[in-house]
Parts: sequence; structure tokens; C-alpha cells
Amino acid sequence: MIAEIISIGNELLIGKVLNTNAHWLCRRLTSLGINVRRVTVVPDDINEISNCLNEAILRKPNYIFTTGGLGPTFDDMTLKAFSNAFNLELILNEEALKMVSLKIEELAKKGVIKHKELTPYRIKMATLPKGSKPLPNPVGTAPGVYLFLNNCEIYILPGVPDEMKAIFEESILPKIKEKSKFKFIEKSLRLIGIAESDLSPIIEQAMKNNPGIYIKSHPKHGEGTSLIELHFSTMKEEINEGEKIINKAIEEISLQIIKKGATIEEIS
Amino acid sequence: MIAEIISIGNELLIGKVLNTNAHWLCRRLTSLGINVRRVTVVPDDINEISNCLNEAILRKPNYIFTTGGLGPTFDDMTLKAFSNAFNLELILNEEALKMVSLKIEELAKKGVIKHKELTPYRIKMATLPKGSKPLPNPVGTAPGVYLFLNNCEIYILPGVPDEMKAIFEESILPKIKEKSKFKFIEKSLRLIGIAESDLSPIIEQAMKNNPGIYIKSHPKHGEGTSLIELHFSTMKEEINEGEKIINKAIEEISLQIIKKGATIEEIS
Repeated sequence: MIAEIISIGNELLIGKVLNTNAHWLCRRLTSLGINVRRVTVVPDDINEISNCLNEAILRKPNYIFTTGGLGPTFDDMTLKAFSNAFNLELILNEEALKMVSLKIEELAKKGVIKHKELTPYRIKMATLPKGSKPLPNPVGTAPGVYLFLNNCEIYILPGVPDEMKAIFEESILPKIKEKSKFKFIEKSLRLIGIAESDLSPIIEQAMKNNPGIYIKSHPKHGEGTSLIELHFSTMKEEINEGEKIINKAIEEISLQIIKKGATIEEIS
Repeated sequence: MIAEIISIGNELLIGKVLNTNAHWLCRRLTSLGINVRRVTVVPDDINEISNCLNEAILRKPNYIFTTGGLGPTFDDMTLKAFSNAFNLELILNEEALKMVSLKIEELAKKGVIKHKELTPYRIKMATLPKGSKPLPNPVGTAPGVYLFLNNCEIYILPGVPDEMKAIFEESILPKIKEKSKFKFIEKSLRLIGIAESDLSPIIEQAMKNNPGIYIKSHPKHGEGTSLIELHFSTMKEEINEGEKIINKAIEEISLQIIKKGATIEEIS
């Protein structure tokens, strides 16, 4: 199962905000056995977003997740971009309007907002591309949106991290869990006293001997220094099975690394 | 001047590593008056990287920056991907080989590595696409690479943050400064007691009245709550000029926000 993530927002591209949403989704999806193949960050620009959506769907992933651009301001244009990209009419969704109205009433009751009328800016959050389904937002006002298009499951999420995470955990996680059989298993070693260029042939051989396992070296202060994190990962149906093949690769590799005069510590 | 950033590495897509490189480059380029239009993260896969490079160059940015995949391991394949994407032969670059050799000798002298022979894994780091120029790496071993292609300045940088930053500051910054006339000016307000949906028409009007200025609201705990950061930014040749138009917009907007019963604090 392959996923793409599209992060929408100028704040990411001017470097005001670190893209922790994409990081969180990558981690979460990977742990659920989903292979994230691409993350794209685009500005609050209708053409840029529409183009990016079109390009993504042509690569035929099983899932697309977007974050950002669902709020009430004029530069929240994700739903309009979906409408443009896939020629889907934007229509007021009664279920979404109910969600927005309830939130507005709740906030008015708490005194957080002063009036509870459904202004065009609030109605905008319930105006969805034809064929889509709103996902309740347990934290904020704008609902998430689900769309099934070209055999791809599309989840359109807000950019506020707490809202994005809450919708994911409540509405998306159960559906993905049902479909994905795989689990992600990983382990890291810390190597002291070996250069990455000397480690390279050892890793290459171990990956050939242990298909399905991915081994990546992360030099901690640049290639050539003596501290390297060696990360082993695999996706398997059973955690035990994954741990077994990782341990086998570690055993194999360790002998050769020690022969080169390096020391090994287990991180996790 | 428009830039794209391409981040290469499985570690980003499995959510093991947060993409601080792209964030740093976005911030740095923006401050130099460069408009970052897209960030793409791709895995260590020759076809994915090649496709992404081709797509990026067809969008005709002035600059492309890539990070990652320059090291000595078999999955460091950025230069091979450039070769594939643009049909450029990979050839041993004498200048790059000198840089790598000097580093290797230095590391051997310090006792960090045990032997200083130029193995194929080390020579790989000096084997560059035809027409490119190596950029000295003050921190690690793999040189950065500069390539001018289809009217686009391409900077190929390592993924280790310290190395990427050092090459940028030493070899790239002076060149960009020479060409870019613009500066980025920004200011933030903290608003308490107004909903984003009520703020939206005010922002929209202020942006119409003050062309060239961008105003974005960042709800701190979801739309509808009462804490919002309002961020003003512009790119101008003179900092004074930018500050002046931002201050004018702030003055204009503040009156209306206060009328709605909210309070305003200046953040920066």
C-alpha cells in the first residue's frame, strides 16, 4: 500500500513552520505498514495545489493525505483546488454543515466567539467537492474530508496539528488498520570507529543476503567521522518474523564490523 | 527568483528524521529574497529521484537545491539520478577527487579512519555528472555539486545538516546575494478573543488595500479558539520600505480587530 502526503501552506515554504505534520503522518503510516513514497509541500496557490493533486493521482498511490487549507480564510483553498483539479462541483454538505454549526454553537456558549450566525466564511468550511464525506473534527471547527477518486483513498485534513492528529486517530486509523496487514519493525545500532565508506560494502552484502530488509547508515557528524547510526527496518505481517530477520542481519554484520576494529552499541 | 527543494532519503519518508534541512533552506532562501515554491521529498530510489528532477526542471525554477544521497553507500544515488534524468555521463572529476583525497588523508592522520586508499566507495563521491563543478565540504568528505542546466542553477548538497549548511554558507550564499535584490520583512501579532472566521474578511480587505503584503492567520489551538497569530510578510528591496507597508497594514487592521472586542499583542 502506497501513500503520498501533500502539505499545503506558505508558512512551510517561507520556513516559518517546521513540517511536523508530514513527519507525524510518515511515522504513523509507516508503523501501520503503509509505504510513504512522496511528500510534497506547495503554497496557498490554487494552481500549484491543483497541479500537485493531479500529478499525485497520476502516480496511482493507494492513499493521498493532504494537510492545510481547510479553514475559513480566503487563502484556505484546498477544497477549491480539489474541485478544479478533478472537475468536482463544490456543494454545501448538510452533514458537514451540522458539524460546523454544532461547533459554532458550542464555542458561542463557552463565550469563545461572540455571535453564532453562519457567515459565508463558516459555510465555506462545509462546502465540499461533490461525492466527498465529512470527517468529524474533535478539536477544531473545519471537518476533515474523505474522497474516493481514481481508486485512491483521499483524506483531506486541517493544518493545525492537534486537529489533523485527532481526525486521523478517530476516523482514519480504524479504516487503515482494517486494510493493512503489515507492521514496521526497526532496530538501530551505534557504531564507533568505522568510516561510512568502509561500512558500505558490508551493508550492501548484508542486504543481498537478507532480502526484504533495509539497512541505512546515518553518519552523525559527516562521513569519515567515527560515529554512525546503523538503522535496520522491514515490513512484515508478524512482528516476530521481522525481529528475527533483523537480528540475523545484525549478527552477520556485527562480526565484520568488529573485525574492522569498531565497537557496537545497541540503541533500540 | 523561484526555487525548488528536493529532499532525498528513506529516513524522511518513514518519519525517522524530521526534515529540518528543507526547513533551514526555506528560511535561509526566503530571507535572501528567494521565493521557495515547492519542497518534494523522495525515497532512495533511482527512478523516483530521476522523475522528480525532471518534473522540477520542467517547472522552470531559477534554482533547484537537493539534499541527501551524496555519500559512499550504494543507496546514495543522487548523482546517478541526475545522470539518468538529464542524460549526463558520470565522470571522475579531478578537482572533486582532490577534495575527497585531502579529507581522507586528514581523517587518517587523525586516526579516525584506518586506511587511506581510494576505494571505489570513496571514488564514487568524486564521480560527477558531466559539466558539474564540485563545491568544497568544510565539514565532511562528499563535496557538494553545482550544475547549470536548462537555465536553472542546481545545487546538490549532502543530507548531513552540518555539511549542507556549511557548503551553503561558504559556496552558495555569496552567489545568491550577488543576484537577489530582495529582502524578506515580517512581523507577527498575537490576537486574543477573535475567531478566525470573523478575522477572515478583515484580512482579505487589508490585503486588497496593501498590495505586495501577505497576511496569514495561524490559529493556535484550532479555528474558533481565541488565540491567533497574525503574520505579516513582504519582499522588498529596502527593509525600511517593507516595514513601512507592514506597519500601515497593522494599523489599519488593528482598529477593526479592537472594534470586535479582541486584544492585540506584538510578538516581533
